[in-house]
Formats: sequence, C-alpha cells, structure tokens
Amino acid sequence: MILLLAALLAAPTAAEIVADAPPAAWRAVAPDNLLIMETGAGTMAIELAPDFAPAHVAAIRDLVRAGRFDGGAIVRVQDNYVVQWAARPAPATKAKPLPAEYERPATGLAITPLGAPDAYGEAGFANGWPVAQDRATGTAWLAHCYGMVGVGRDNPPDTGDGSELYAVIGHAPRHLDRNIALVGRVVAGIEPHAALPRGSETMGFYKGPAQQTAITRVRLASAVADAPRFEVMDTGSASFAEYKTARANRTGFFVRPAGASDLCNVVVPIRTVK
Amino acid sequence: MILLLAALLAAPTAAEIVADAPPAAWRAVAPDNLLIMETGAGTMAIELAPDFAPAHVAAIRDLVRAGRFDGGAIVRVQDNYVVQWAARPAPATKAKPLPAEYERPATGLAITPLGAPDAYGEAGFANGWPVAQDRATGTAWLAHCYGMVGVGRDNPPDTGDGSELYAVIGHAPRHLDRNIALVGRVVAGIEPHAALPRGSETMGFYKGPAQQTAITRVRLASAVADAPRFEVMDTGSASFAEYKTARANRTGFFVRPAGASDLCNVVVPIRTVK
Repeated sequence: MILLLAALLAAPTAAEIVADAPPAAWRAVAPDNLLIMETGAGTMAIELAPDFAPAHVAAIRDLVRAGRFDGGAIVRVQDNYVVQWAARPAPATKAKPLPAEYERPATGLAITPLGAPDAYGEAGFANGWPVAQDRATGTAWLAHCYGMVGVGRDNPPDTGDGSELYAVIGHAPRHLDRNIALVGRVVAGIEPHAALPRGSETMGFYKGPAQQTAITRVRLASAVADAPRFEVMDTGSASFAEYKTARANRTGFFVRPAGASDLCNVVVPIRTVK
Repeated sequence: MILLLAALLAAPTAAEIVADAPPAAWRAVAPDNLLIMETGAGTMAIELAPDFAPAHVAAIRDLVRAGRFDGGAIVRVQDNYVVQWAARPAPATKAKPLPAEYERPATGLAITPLGAPDAYGEAGFANGWPVAQDRATGTAWLAHCYGMVGVGRDNPPDTGDGSELYAVIGHAPRHLDRNIALVGRVVAGIEPHAALPRGSETMGFYKGPAQQTAITRVRLASAVADAPRFEVMDTGSASFAEYKTARANRTGFFVRPAGASDLCNVVVPIRTVK
C-alpha cells in the first residue's frame, strides 16, 4: 500500500502526460471536418465525424456551404442536457431525410478499450472519439459525452436532415446512444454556450426570437483564412494509455484514487495548434 | 421481440409513474435539512444529508444560523464541473477542521441496487440518495451526480469547514467520490446558477468581487415562514423500482431502449408540495 502510494505520487499527472506527448501521439483535425460557428455568445469550433455518420456529415457540409446556418439561432438550452441550434428554414421543399446512422460496423475501427464497466455497452475509444460497442451485433457507436454534437430529429427516426444540431451540456445522456445521429463534438468554445440562459418552455426551448441567440455564420475551416487548427490525441497511442491510467488514478488532491474512470470522465485531450 | 416491444409501448413512462406514485412512495424533506439560498441569480433550495455527513451538516447549520453565508458570494463556476460559493470570512480564528466524512458503514442503510455496471463501485440508492458501496470495506457513500452539493477543501483532506460549498453542474465527477464530503443536493433552482458565466481564472474562479454573484441570504427552511416544501421519492418503494425500469427502457422517441441506465441518469424524483 505504501509502495503503491509512492508509485502513484511518482507517476506523472494527466496534464503532464498531455504536455509531454510526442507529435506522433496527435492527429490533426482536417479542415473539412472542422466547423467554425460564430454566435452572439462567442465562437464554437466543432469537429465532424464522417467515419460514423457520413451522410449526415455530408448534408451538414452542404448546409454550411449554402450558408443555411447564417442567420440561424440557438433555439433551445435545457439544463443538464443540451444546447440546440437551427439553420434558417429551407427555402422550398423539406430536405430528404437522412439514413439512421446511429451505429456502424465495429470492423474497421481500432477500438482502445476503456477497461472499466459501463452500463450502456463496452466502452472505449476509436480514432480520438469516445465510443461503445456491442460484440453481439458487431456494431460500434459514438457515445453521448459532454460536448458531443448530434442531429435533432422528431419522433419518426428518419426526420433529421442536419439543419438542427445540439451539443451535450450536462451529464452524459447515454440513453440517446444509438437513438439519434451523433456527428461530432465541440473542440473549443462550448463554455459561453453552456452558460446561456435555460429556455423557459417545455424541454428548454426559448419562447421566441427575442430569447434566442443569433448565429452570425458557420463556415468550414477549409473555407476560412487563418482558421484555428486543432489536434486530437491518438487514442491508440502510448500517451493516451498513460493518460487513461492517470485519469483513473488521480493524485495530489485525491486521498483515494478511484482506480477506474467512466468513459466520459476520460476526456480525450484536444489542443490548439499555433 | 414483437411482444417485448408491445410490452414496452404499453408500459407507463417515467413521468406517468412519478405522477401516479401514491403518497406512501414519497418522503418529506425535513425543514431542518433544507437550505434556502437567495443569490443574485435566483433562489436555490438544497437538501442536506445528515445520514452521510453529520458533522459537516451540523457545521453548515451553525454557519447558516450565524448568518455567515449572508453577504457571501459565488466565487467559482467551472464549465462541466461545479458552481462554488463561500461564506463571508470567519471573524476571528479559523474554524476547527471537520472529520473526513467521505464514506460511512453500509450497515444501517437500505440500499436499492441500481442493477447496472458502474465504474466506481456498486451503485444504488439509499433513502432517496444516489450512492455507491464497496462490499469489501463495508462502506457506502454519496455519489457525485448532477446537482449534488459538497464541501470545498484544500489539498490536506481535513481543511474543509463547511464555509465553502459547491454543486455539480456537469458530467458526474465520480472520481471525487470518497475524496471530499458530499453533504446534500440541489432540489430546486439550479438552472440559473448552472447558467452563470464561467470564471476566467484557473479552475473557473472569478477574478474578483465584480465578477462574482452575491449571496443575499441563506436560511434553514425551519426558520423561514412559508418556506417551500419538497418531497423525495422513496427509493425503496415499488414506484421507484418501476421508475428505474422505465428510465432504462425509454419509449416514444427511443428506437432502441438502452436496457440499462447509469446511476446519475436515474435522477431521483423530487416534487414540490403545495
């Protein structure tokens, strides 16, 4: 016990592991997978996940290139749940519903196991994303951790068209996993959006435009000069394995390291690149 | 599969179960365990948990009765983590440090199992509280779910005196379980406090009083005329068992009920009493 404690005290902290991770332990966020969204509350950068929801990501890119989010609004903030925003209404016909990209074959993904029990599946990480998998069905899916971005839909499962998006701003609503399309995650700027006033109506919707926060514009980073650049830690790297262990065995303030961590408390490190 | 689906569609929703729960399925929040905190952002009601942290709760009651929180301030809001507030500084000597009430014997608690895997222990509910237990040590402890209230401390584990409190406003930081004293939970009014601007300094502290939100006053409900009254669902009741099952097998919007739920997504029902 004394020796274990000594080992823990000598072990680098999660922050030190991140700071010391070599260049090979990081992957760049591709500019075509990076949305830059400017709102009345600030700028939010979102990494898209075409490996998990290719049709949704393609539709969102199309909406962005068409300027459909410019002049849109944040229409809903529900406490301990989501902030949700909408493009301007479609000019004519309703967009074709997208396929229900709620899970995908696990084959083709290099999944690093979390190594701790999970109520919703077998938790892990794939290419920098928090995921869960079910070996019985051979499928894997993105997990609804804090900051993950999904596509709003109505009750019929195929009605989402990518024009209404949400980001998780509370305890991970993992019951939504495999029930809605996750398409990415916020990589910067969630704070002022998570701090927006909660909407007064059912499910946190705002009463009307006066309460909503305007979206000035949304662009793909590939279309913006001097766009910010981000790197995500490679969740297959030795640095991430060390980081994961450090998150489960915190030191300093902690008198009793948990020895494990749930999926969403192993926040995948993301850094800005100068 | 068809039959299972039919059974799920016929099953009452979690909201219906809560609405239909008989009076015996509820327990009142004792007025001596209920703090009414008025701040510049609104009113927050907090239920204290003397069964888990008796010395801390007694110290907090003493501070409240002495008016020490009146004129205090919300000093820290860290995104996806906590809102934290502090009493006015003690007039003279530093208060005696409190014992480390981080866990207690499981004996004497009627624990209803969650019935799903948990990364941090064996999860369940006791007398209306989310808890975890370790059968090896025979101990149980309150879990850091959304809205739970704890006592800030410095690095030495015995420095908390109850004059600095925090509420969880993000994904459950369960790694704090057994590392800090949880003393209760917010039962009403967390929304405007969770929506406060995040602090600009390290760990979300505000830069100074100009950024902070003032605490007007804090009283025990037992000392307030016409104080609000709350009831918590008895987590040993048949209604709660039904509710827990419904939370794991959501219907309506959900195309694939998870079949399980993590501890903090089975939010214990609380209602106001007219």
